Order: sequence, then structure tokens, then C-alpha cells
Amino acid sequence: MAGRLTDVGPDRLFAAARRVMVRCDELARATATPGAGIERVYLSPEHARVNRLVAEWMREIGMTTHQDAAGNQVGRMLPVLGDPEAPALLLGSHLDTVPAAGRFDGIAGVLMALEVVRLLRASSGPGRPGRVPLPFALEVIAFSDEEGTRFGKALLGSAASAGGWREDWWALRDADGVTLREAFLDFGLDPGRIGEAAYRPEQLVGYLEAHIEQGPELDERGESLAVVSSIAGARRFQITVEGEARHAGGTPYEARRDALLGASEAALAVERICRAEHHIIGTVGQLETFPGAVNVVPGEARLSLDLRGELDGSRDRVWDAIARELDAIMGRRGLRWRARPFHDAPAVFCAPLLQDVVRAGIMATLPAGADAPATLFSRAGHDGMAMADVTDVGMLFMRNPGGISHHPDEFVSVSDVAAGIWALTEAVLHLAGDSRS
Amino acid sequence: MAGRLTDVGPDRLFAAARRVMVRCDELARATATPGAGIERVYLSPEHARVNRLVAEWMREIGMTTHQDAAGNQVGRMLPVLGDPEAPALLLGSHLDTVPAAGRFDGIAGVLMALEVVRLLRASSGPGRPGRVPLPFALEVIAFSDEEGTRFGKALLGSAASAGGWREDWWALRDADGVTLREAFLDFGLDPGRIGEAAYRPEQLVGYLEAHIEQGPELDERGESLAVVSSIAGARRFQITVEGEARHAGGTPYEARRDALLGASEAALAVERICRAEHHIIGTVGQLETFPGAVNVVPGEARLSLDLRGELDGSRDRVWDAIARELDAIMGRRGLRWRARPFHDAPAVFCAPLLQDVVRAGIMATLPAGADAPATLFSRAGHDGMAMADVTDVGMLFMRNPGGISHHPDEFVSVSDVAAGIWALTEAVLHLAGDSRS
Repeated sequence: MAGRLTDVGPDRLFAAARRVMVRCDELARATATPGAGIERVYLSPEHARVNRLVAEWMREIGMTTHQDAAGNQVGRMLPVLGDPEAPALLLGSHLDTVPAAGRFDGIAGVLMALEVVRLLRASSGPGRPGRVPLPFALEVIAFSDEEGTRFGKALLGSAASAGGWREDWWALRDADGVTLREAFLDFGLDPGRIGEAAYRPEQLVGYLEAHIEQGPELDERGESLAVVSSIAGARRFQITVEGEARHAGGTPYEARRDALLGASEAALAVERICRAEHHIIGTVGQLETFPGAVNVVPGEARLSLDLRGELDGSRDRVWDAIARELDAIMGRRGLRWRARPFHDAPAVFCAPLLQDVVRAGIMATLPAGADAPATLFSRAGHDGMAMADVTDVGMLFMRNPGGISHHPDEFVSVSDVAAGIWALTEAVLHLAGDSRS
Repeated sequence: MAGRLTDVGPDRLFAAARRVMVRCDELARATATPGAGIERVYLSPEHARVNRLVAEWMREIGMTTHQDAAGNQVGRMLPVLGDPEAPALLLGSHLDTVPAAGRFDGIAGVLMALEVVRLLRASSGPGRPGRVPLPFALEVIAFSDEEGTRFGKALLGSAASAGGWREDWWALRDADGVTLREAFLDFGLDPGRIGEAAYRPEQLVGYLEAHIEQGPELDERGESLAVVSSIAGARRFQITVEGEARHAGGTPYEARRDALLGASEAALAVERICRAEHHIIGTVGQLETFPGAVNVVPGEARLSLDLRGELDGSRDRVWDAIARELDAIMGRRGLRWRARPFHDAPAVFCAPLLQDVVRAGIMATLPAGADAPATLFSRAGHDGMAMADVTDVGMLFMRNPGGISHHPDEFVSVSDVAAGIWALTEAVLHLAGDSRS
């Protein structure tokens, strides 16, 4: 079935990709920090603004739209046969950002999903001889919170869609002390209706997402697209090292119990242990010292640890090794340490069928006889981690030059976006073929 | 001349020491953070409150008092012969604190100076047969800012007394953005009169200070008191390490330029290099990461370095060695680094005559035939560093159990305070003898 879109022509594909790029620029202007990078968090005025824009663009291609009970923006297009109860293939990603973000992480995936719908409508919509009448509805979903920037808890938007919302989240507070419940009300959402955002399994065919790799592997291979095999699970810890605050001048080294030096050894141990492992990565992103005065030996240090691996078991074994090393370091230095886990997401595997259709979709964009595309696991978290609770998940990665992401220099080329739109459209058609057979 | 005060008797000495301890407790209640340790900063309501208390205690022993143009509290007692123009021996220390401070650092020295005046007055005051009519006036000074907690610049009070005030300090701001000039006006001081706080060299015989050691050497030796030979010079730097902020999940180790890992190596290198040196101590008291998110590889880290040594030359050679090591570390990790010096105080040597009289004063408290007391250099900074610009400086250290200072557990025993009052009084009498001869 590969190549059915080739007669759509490169012109139309590139027009679609250019529209994605222009719209990424347009959405980048919806930021809480104009002139200082993009920051667009859950339930903010910028969130409302991008939902309005994306809803317009959904309606422009014939979709019916609604904002769901969690602030996710949804568009729906019925299948050619028009069954309003037909289950939907969900395409999408998220529109929220980290602080000082790039303009493609998540956003490109939402806008590419709209282009897939546009191309499929052109090929098979009412009023045109549909070549491949789809046996399922298409929905595009723009998740409202994937990064967790505002409330510290990631995947709030997709958790609501997957029916995984937890009552205790309502009391989460942002940096200004606003609770998630208050933020819902301020945004015009009713916390009591959060359950309405949840899909039931029988309403969905699956969830497909295109995303930049957020890593350099495709760039290093010189390839545009990859199949995603799984999304790494992450465990996060807040580690506290306790020593004794002492006068920096008067206290000789033998009498010091310097919490920062213990924390420094800990950060370097995390790097050393993880580098020696395959497919495990650990990051200390935060480190603070107390009292934090230039002339006081730090009595306490707090550091974060983000630990990810393709397999939960090997990741957990690495955590055990890190904990043993911390025992040794802190013992040598007369320090105490403790770790508070605050996030524990298991690895999520992409459904074999959806891996296959994404692979077939990518193959359709390659010259005949080309090697199969790369299959990568995602070290970064994605909305699919939450959606896997309710339906099958598939993902496609696009080349991310230099692997730079969560940074204003984050980039994806227009030709890779064009290839991604093409591959994703072919993947939908493959899935349609499989669904009918 | 040793032993002239022995007939004052241990009862009177211990009463003096107990009064010092009770008053340390009383001053500890003048804190900006009741219930959470002592914090008393320059030009605060607590500063005004302790000045009022100390002025009362000065008048109680017959001193005339004034608050000088920099907020230092001064008491003066004329010599027996009553020459109002007589130069003064200045005794004192400071009343301000670091955050979460102990109750003795500085404060004990001020209160002990008052007890020295009380004892000398009892021995030689008007209305009593003065055994050693002093050839100089006695002044007690309670410096208003030694720690530099509020404006980041240490020794503001003593710098004013030494005539070392700098015009550019008026623009220094505290954490709330209040300038030093504004704080002067709020406190009721006239910035235009700051010069009036300055002593002229001919007005002073010298400056003598008793202080807790802020280190464990006397405690380890099992001795009460030491002569101070010099006050270490300190250089302070703000070091910035620049890497690249990247997504913590997606970025493999080979592609990372993690500023925190470079900073961690730097902190450990400072410890390693300084430990290998004699009489040099380096402290990284502050470390911050940017953007400081749990899931972002740190793109920048900022750390402070406080570097002290008995000799400026060896301290500066150690800084050169640290800088070479930072070049190597950051080069290996693809990071850039820079250092901004923001404090550079040369080492100050105590005047040989004042070292001798402090030594003789301590000897007077020891059994006949005892070894000479220890002579230590001070790794911590003191008001004497500023006062050395205008007069000779001498210091006496008291045992500081465990060397714990700048911490609520900071302590000095009542018997060591008694010994210190005795030794300091004897030192003044020795100096009087030398001055007359």
C-alpha cells in the first residue's frame, strides 16, 4: 500500500510542512515571558490562547471541536461512512512548554496531526472520490499539560484523557500557592466534571504521536525518521545530604562535614555509574546549599535525581548501585543522606501493531530498497505514557539537529516535518487497511 | 607584673564572666528571626536595641557613651589623671551576626571589654587607691557590622572607625533592594557625617579584641586562651560555569555539557588542592544551577569560593593552582568558566608589642612554670583587619568547643570567659607599664 500519497505530490507535502513551521512560530508568541523565551503552562492565559488558535485550525479542515474537561483541545472528523459512534484513532501531542522552551517539542506533533487530517480529507473526504475510506473516526488532541511545569506533576492533560486523574492532585500548588483546583476554576473549568475528559477503551483505536527525538541519534545517523519502541520509565528523587554548617574560616578540613562536597561526589557518582550502563541515564538538574553563605561551610545540600532506562528492572538496579555508592561517600565524609521518591513512572512499550504501521509509514517515504528505519526508545517522557492506560500507543520520531531540546535553539527541519507528515499519513492508511482486513 | 589582679579574687572574676554569659543570652533575644536562631544585621531595629542595652551597661560602669556616625556604640573612660585629650586604648568587637548565628561570636568580646573596664576601675578608679593609674583612656567599641550579612560587604562598622569608608558603598543594596544610604537614613544616621566616625592614628594607643577561636585548635590542645599572630587574608570569587541546557531524558552523556558536573569537580578540586597545602583553606559555600529543573541538564552553575591563608603569597599561589585545575576540568567537559573576584583582603599581622602583652596577660592566668600559650593565626576575619589601617591591633582567642561557630551550637565556657577577662585585664596593665616606661 506504500506510496499511495505520492500523487499528493511533494508540493502539497511541503506546503503542509511549511504551514506547520509558520504555526509553530505563531504559537511561540503565546508566552508568559515575551522576549525571554517561550513559557506556556497549564491553565494560563497563554494556554487558553493557543487552544483558541488550534480550535480554529481544526474547524478550518472540517473538524468538530471541543475543549475537554481538563483543558485539552480536541477536534473530531467522522469517518467517510459517517458513523458518529465509530471509535477514533487519536493523533496528537501537547501544547504546553517547559520554561525557556523551544517551539517544536509537542507543538509540532499537534500541528502535523492537523496536516495528516487535511491530507486524508483531500484523499478521501466527502465530495471527493475517497480512495481509502477510513473505518474509524480521526481525532486530533492537543494535550494541555505534558511537561508539568506549573504544578510539578507531569502528564496532567493526558492522565485526564486516560481516566487516570487522582483526587489528591487537586491540592497541588504552583509557585504562587495557587492550587490546581483554584486554577481550574480560574480557567473556567469545573473540577467536578474532570471524569468527562476520560476516554473509554472502546472509544479508541489507538494513539499515534509524532515528536522530535529530543536526542541526537537520528542526526548522527543522518536519517529523518524513526519508529519508537518504548518510552523510558523515570524515577525521580529529592536527595538531602546533611552535614554541619560551620565557619568557613575557622574550621579546618578535618573538622568539616561539608554537605556540598558530599553532594558533588554524589552528582559525579551518578554520572560514573550510569555511563557504565547501557540505556540508563541519570541527571542531577537541581542542587542547592544551605545556609548558602559565601563564608559558611554548607550544612545541608539538596539535589534532584532523574533516572531513566528502557527497562524498569535495569533502572532500578542502577538506583540500588547509586544508593550503595552514596552510603560509601557519605560514610567517608561523616554525612547523613536520605532520598524521597516523588515520581515513579514505569516504562511504556509501544504496541507492536502501531510500531509496524509507523515503520511501514516511514518505509513509504524512503526509496525502494532502502534499509528499514531506526527503532529507538524514548528517554524522554511523552503523553503516550499516560494514554497507554486506555489504548495502544505508537510514536514516530523526527530528527532533532544536535539533539537540542528544552532550549530556545531546539529545531526540526521543514523537510523532516514533511517526511513526518507523509509517514504518519501512510501509517494511518496502513492501520485502516489492517483494521478492515 | 603578672598576678596583680589575683587579689581581685576568683569570685569577682567568675561574677564578671557569669555577667557576660547572662548578657549574651539577653542580646540573643534581639533577633529578626525569633524562634529560628539569631539574626541581627546592620541598621536593623535589633541593631538599635542592642546598642541601647550596651550603652546602658557602659554608663553603669562610669563610661560616657555615644553612638558614632556609623552606628557603632562607643563608651569612654578617662585615665585616672583625667586628661580628656589622652589617646585611648580601644577594646571591643562586634554585635552583628550571620543568619542562624551563635550568641558569642563578637558579642562576648564586647561584653568582656566592659568587664575589663569594670575591673580596672575597681583597681585604679577615682575614690580608690589606684594601683596602676593608666596613662591612656579606655574606650570600648561595639562595632555595628563585621559579618556583612545585610549588604554583602563585611567590616562596614570598623571600616568607618578606621577612616576606610568608600563612597561606592552607599549604593550597596540589601536583599530587599534597600541601599546602604537609605538604611542609614531609616536608622536615623546622616550619611554626610560618616567621616566623623573615623579615629585619627594619634587618638589611639591600639586596638585589643577577645574573640572565640571559631576553630577547634585550643579545644584539641586542652587550653583556654591563645595569642593571635595574624588574621588571614581572604579572597572571594563568584565562579560561573557555562555548559548547555539540554533535555535530561533525550540527551546521552556524550552530547552533554553539564555545568553542574563541572562545578562539582571544581568544588572537590578546591578541597583537594587546599588540603595538600599548609595553612590554606578554601570553601565553596554557595552553588546554584540554571535553569534548575529536575528534567533539564544544567546549562549554567554558579559557585562561590572563599580562599584564606596566613600568607597572602601562598594563598594567591593556591588560587593560581585552582585556576589551572579548573581550566583542565572544564576543558575535558567542553565547558567554559570565569571567575569574578568580589573581595580581596590582605592578611593583617598583629603588632608585636600587642602580641607580647596578650601573651603576658595569658601567662598571668597560668600556674608558675607553665608553657607559653599557643600562638594561632585567625582563619576568620575580624574587625582588627579594618582597624589595622589606623592603629596597632592585638587579639586574644578563647577556646571554642568543637570549633563550632556561625551556628546555634556555638559555645564558650564561663571559666574560659573568666580566664579571658583576667588575661585581657593583665594585658592592659602590661601595656600601661610599657607605655609609661
